[in-house]
Amino acid sequence: MTVNRKILLAQRPQRMFTDACFAIVEEPIPEPGDGEAVVRVEYLSLDPAMRGWVRDERSYLPPVQLGEVMRSGGAGRVVASRHPLFPVGAGVMGMLGWQEYAVIGGSSGVRANPVPDGVDLIDSLSLFGSTGVTAYFGVLDVGQPKAGETFVVSGAAGGVGSIAGQIAKIVGCRVVGIAGTKEKCSWVVDELGFDACIDYKAGDVAEALRDACPRGVDVYFDNVGGDILDAALQTMNDFGRIVACGMISRYNDSELSPGPEHMTNIVTRRLRMQGFIVIDFLARFAEAAMQLAVWAGEGRLTNRVHVVDGFLSAPTAINLLFDGGNIGKLVVKI
Amino acid sequence: MTVNRKILLAQRPQRMFTDACFAIVEEPIPEPGDGEAVVRVEYLSLDPAMRGWVRDERSYLPPVQLGEVMRSGGAGRVVASRHPLFPVGAGVMGMLGWQEYAVIGGSSGVRANPVPDGVDLIDSLSLFGSTGVTAYFGVLDVGQPKAGETFVVSGAAGGVGSIAGQIAKIVGCRVVGIAGTKEKCSWVVDELGFDACIDYKAGDVAEALRDACPRGVDVYFDNVGGDILDAALQTMNDFGRIVACGMISRYNDSELSPGPEHMTNIVTRRLRMQGFIVIDFLARFAEAAMQLAVWAGEGRLTNRVHVVDGFLSAPTAINLLFDGGNIGKLVVKI
Repeated sequence: MTVNRKILLAQRPQRMFTDACFAIVEEPIPEPGDGEAVVRVEYLSLDPAMRGWVRDERSYLPPVQLGEVMRSGGAGRVVASRHPLFPVGAGVMGMLGWQEYAVIGGSSGVRANPVPDGVDLIDSLSLFGSTGVTAYFGVLDVGQPKAGETFVVSGAAGGVGSIAGQIAKIVGCRVVGIAGTKEKCSWVVDELGFDACIDYKAGDVAEALRDACPRGVDVYFDNVGGDILDAALQTMNDFGRIVACGMISRYNDSELSPGPEHMTNIVTRRLRMQGFIVIDFLARFAEAAMQLAVWAGEGRLTNRVHVVDGFLSAPTAINLLFDGGNIGKLVVKI
Repeated sequence: MTVNRKILLAQRPQRMFTDACFAIVEEPIPEPGDGEAVVRVEYLSLDPAMRGWVRDERSYLPPVQLGEVMRSGGAGRVVASRHPLFPVGAGVMGMLGWQEYAVIGGSSGVRANPVPDGVDLIDSLSLFGSTGVTAYFGVLDVGQPKAGETFVVSGAAGGVGSIAGQIAKIVGCRVVGIAGTKEKCSWVVDELGFDACIDYKAGDVAEALRDACPRGVDVYFDNVGGDILDAALQTMNDFGRIVACGMISRYNDSELSPGPEHMTNIVTRRLRMQGFIVIDFLARFAEAAMQLAVWAGEGRLTNRVHVVDGFLSAPTAINLLFDGGNIGKLVVKI
């Protein structure tokens, strides 16, 4: 292999990603400049936030420009190096993008972190990557659940949601998931130990939440927004907290949609709804990684990864996030 | 006068309060039982929250029942007493209700507070009542503005909004009001010292906010909800705070209305939207009263009261709150 294939953003999606959104180019494998290393990418992380990154609007990161490599987390190993911290063979995770070889460090502008030899590259993208760390800070710092409280998480079978619910169980909460299939619900209850799970396609979610949460909802970890957020607003207890982690139900909208009808409950029930982005917690990633590793080592955290094979499958695989096709963290294996 | 007139809730309003919602009854002036005092009510406090109190649904206070005296703050003086803390002549504020004479203490279940001789009864309902205290804790505890930040308040010419904006000025913020007439806007800018005020009926509020807040909005103190909340969501800075104090635009709705379209900004801009009710701060009322009194004494707080004369005008006067007819705190003088 002497060729580096890259997938560029060719066109902004109207709704779901389509083939026309991307262009594949082939280039020679880059040589590392001074202070740089070249990484052969082995895994790509596919995340709902990526849909936001291709919108041409102000957000917490600049939008991916047309003609740029599609932005994405990734993990791989160094194949050529002029970087003091990343020798050949070293494991690397970072914003490697949709390409088979990525340049990190030096003037590349790509931040990357070493992955120790004892850690699986795939775990560096899931449990120890933005997925696990998002769940960790979202639950503990933003949601602040207490033992005995009722914790509800939507997107419960997704990468972040499945970890978030398990962390809330460790805290001592009653944990109720919301997911889109019976299979997903069974998984989070039977395998992850959630106390209950609501199939949101099977009936009225607000009613199901009332049934599943007889003492109301103290923390709602929201990955989806829209109607399910509205259902949660109806079942929140006084002084409840809504962790605004994501609103995937809205990401493919080409026009704005009306918001939840029960906003006045924020006042009358004194709710706190708080958004966060995991990169705000960059300085505390080590704390999260330590704790997540200890919990995983104790068998208290199950980290499931949904692996799709083949670099060129990334543009279609990403839509699994939006049509509910993945269980656990979605990753492409190159 | 030996008659006590009372205004009872006769029927729940569909939208605005109407005459049919209330019934007037006449009873003998009550005698105080053991541990009770009888107060001749001089002022009634009219507040947007009262619209919520007559809805037959779960909220932070039980709904006013049909046939009960309409719940309301009030202030007056003791005319007969068997209460150790409230001798005849003492000033009193509390949830006195729409009646000319109220029984406090003892088995009446009505909590009341003494008003010192040096304090005007009307101030005990406005600056030192739930209005001023709501503004105080809403701004400082919930909004947490810092000097140099931009603070926006809707219902800017209302009781709470006008105090909230002045407190934010004291903190050192750029303060922009939103109100419904040119006259209100002139008042908050010329008399209260706000830096700018937007007449929301005069054009696109999001655009006007962008113009009035060139460095974005750090704290939005929301008294109105609805479209203006949606406009604020579009102009909030990263890590901005939305103080969910009230949503008066929704209180008269007989059906639920769609919420704001820009909810995803809560995630991407890491906003904190937090509801509160002033009674949650009951234990800290003294702190607020002290500080508000000092600021008022220094001439840094202007407390305007819109007084409507006559006990029987209460049922129509309360609608001033909903059709934008009052400037400053709305009070009925009996």
